[in-house]
Amino acid sequence: MSADEIAKLLHAEFPQGFYPGCSYNIERVGYGDICVRWSFDENSLRPGGTVSGPTMMELADFAMYVAVFSAIGPQPLAVTTNLNINFLRKPARADLLADAKLMKVGKRLAVGEVTIHSEGTDEPVAHVTATYSIPQTR
Amino acid sequence: MSADEIAKLLHAEFPQGFYPGCSYNIERVGYGDICVRWSFDENSLRPGGTVSGPTMMELADFAMYVAVFSAIGPQPLAVTTNLNINFLRKPARADLLADAKLMKVGKRLAVGEVTIHSEGTDEPVAHVTATYSIPQTR
Amino acid sequence: MSADEIAKLLHAEFPQGFYPGCSYNIERVGYGDICVRWSFDENSLRPGGTVSGPTMMELADFAMYVAVFSAIGPQPLAVTTNLNINFLRKPARADLLADAKLMKVGKRLAVGEVTIHSEGTDEPVAHVTATYSIPQTR
Amino acid sequence: MSADEIAKLLHAEFPQGFYPGCSYNIERVGYGDICVRWSFDENSLRPGGTVSGPTMMELADFAMYVAVFSAIGPQPLAVTTNLNINFLRKPARADLLADAKLMKVGKRLAVGEVTIHSEGTDEPVAHVTATYSIPQTR
Repeated sequence: MSADEIAKLLHAEFPQGFYPGCSYNIERVGYGDICVRWSFDENSLRPGGTVSGPTMMELADFAMYVAVFSAIGPQPLAVTTNLNINFLRKPARADLLADAKLMKVGKRLAVGEVTIHSEGTDEPVAHVTATYSIPQTR
Repeated sequence: MSADEIAKLLHAEFPQGFYPGCSYNIERVGYGDICVRWSFDENSLRPGGTVSGPTMMELADFAMYVAVFSAIGPQPLAVTTNLNINFLRKPARADLLADAKLMKVGKRLAVGEVTIHSEGTDEPVAHVTATYSIPQTR
Repeated sequence: MSADEIAKLLHAEFPQGFYPGCSYNIERVGYGDICVRWSFDENSLRPGGTVSGPTMMELADFAMYVAVFSAIGPQPLAVTTNLNINFLRKPARADLLADAKLMKVGKRLAVGEVTIHSEGTDEPVAHVTATYSIPQTR
Repeated sequence: MSADEIAKLLHAEFPQGFYPGCSYNIERVGYGDICVRWSFDENSLRPGGTVSGPTMMELADFAMYVAVFSAIGPQPLAVTTNLNINFLRKPARADLLADAKLMKVGKRLAVGEVTIHSEGTDEPVAHVTATYSIPQTR
């Protein structure tokens, strides 16, 4: 699926989460290898002036969802079964870019990693591995 | 710290996230052993009509934050370094209750687990372990 | 399956790992709720005189394996798909006890947690969550 | 530290685990970016004829240990605080190569990832993230 097809599917299936003007933009889509941008928003700060952890977890989960679609096609009922995040550095007051890459695309499970960095810096602010369960279709 | 003291501190330090009328309520606070309620909200559903994964991750992170305060006092700059979540069952269309318990309160790190279940059911919908880094105060 | 039946199955299927006189003993078996003992052994120490991390990871994986058998019967081809461990305290120079409890027994996945403590102390030295994939049998 | 210096240190500090003729060989050492080989051994198989999970966890932990040394010098008392492993594919009956790369080298914590693959194949058999706590020296 292309970035446009995935955006349309997400908007149709998940209108509360993904809509024109929301914080997410799908920047790049290859097979199991995608990038999502989160636009900086003052409401997502936490004490210390940092982008909050849940903002990064939600971005990582969304990026994995897009990566799964890019590899196995429209499966809106694919669900996360495990997500592990390491917070590495304080993010800048800037957009976040999440690069997701699948390491395994099996019949039942897809496993990937997501590296998040602040735009304009190289070092990652968070690293995620996640597993998605793929519904069986007959 | 008591539930009221923690609520006041969170409201002062983190007014975007915790305020009268927000989705969270601190139900119970013991030493390193607390419970937070999340009030059901149609906007947090994902495809399939389920409460979204990020809603549960944010709740777990918030519950750990409260548990850390309950044990070491006001440390708004404590930050999550690692969070691992297993999604176990589809939540009901109901409030979620998150029970957080610290397994270790060290000088530098606090480690805990959070079990989330839907109100009215016994079996957990998600289980989380998380590590918080405690800032050194001199 | 009872402790004896599980011990026999493990010895038959996995003679390199589990045999009379090996370091593991199955102490207690309930449905998805078991305990395994690891007998202290000087060869498993690491710098600092502590029982090594891999010793605890192997014990946790073995305990989960026994817990899966206790719930779904003989499935020697069940495999771990994810394991997350938090090391909490320096273990004593003593036996380790691993209590494993399944939080979910699904058709495809079983998820559990394992708490490890040194004999004679109450506080856990390590906490593990793990997911096993259950082979489909027809 | 070079591969030779690290091997000497490990042999001195940890003679039960690392010695001439043991299963591990340090193949390559850069700053926070190393490779360790594990030599295939029939005793490490599990039911199904696969290299066992604990063998891969131990290898990953050892590789992270070498990576930490490569970046911060001789710190034999550095300890793992968290390790998360995803098992991706059945390994071949062959040597395993573990590439470890640090994503963060802080004053208190080092965080890295380890990708393990069977010699002669490209796709990873396991992926690990781990956190080491660095003792404060003064």
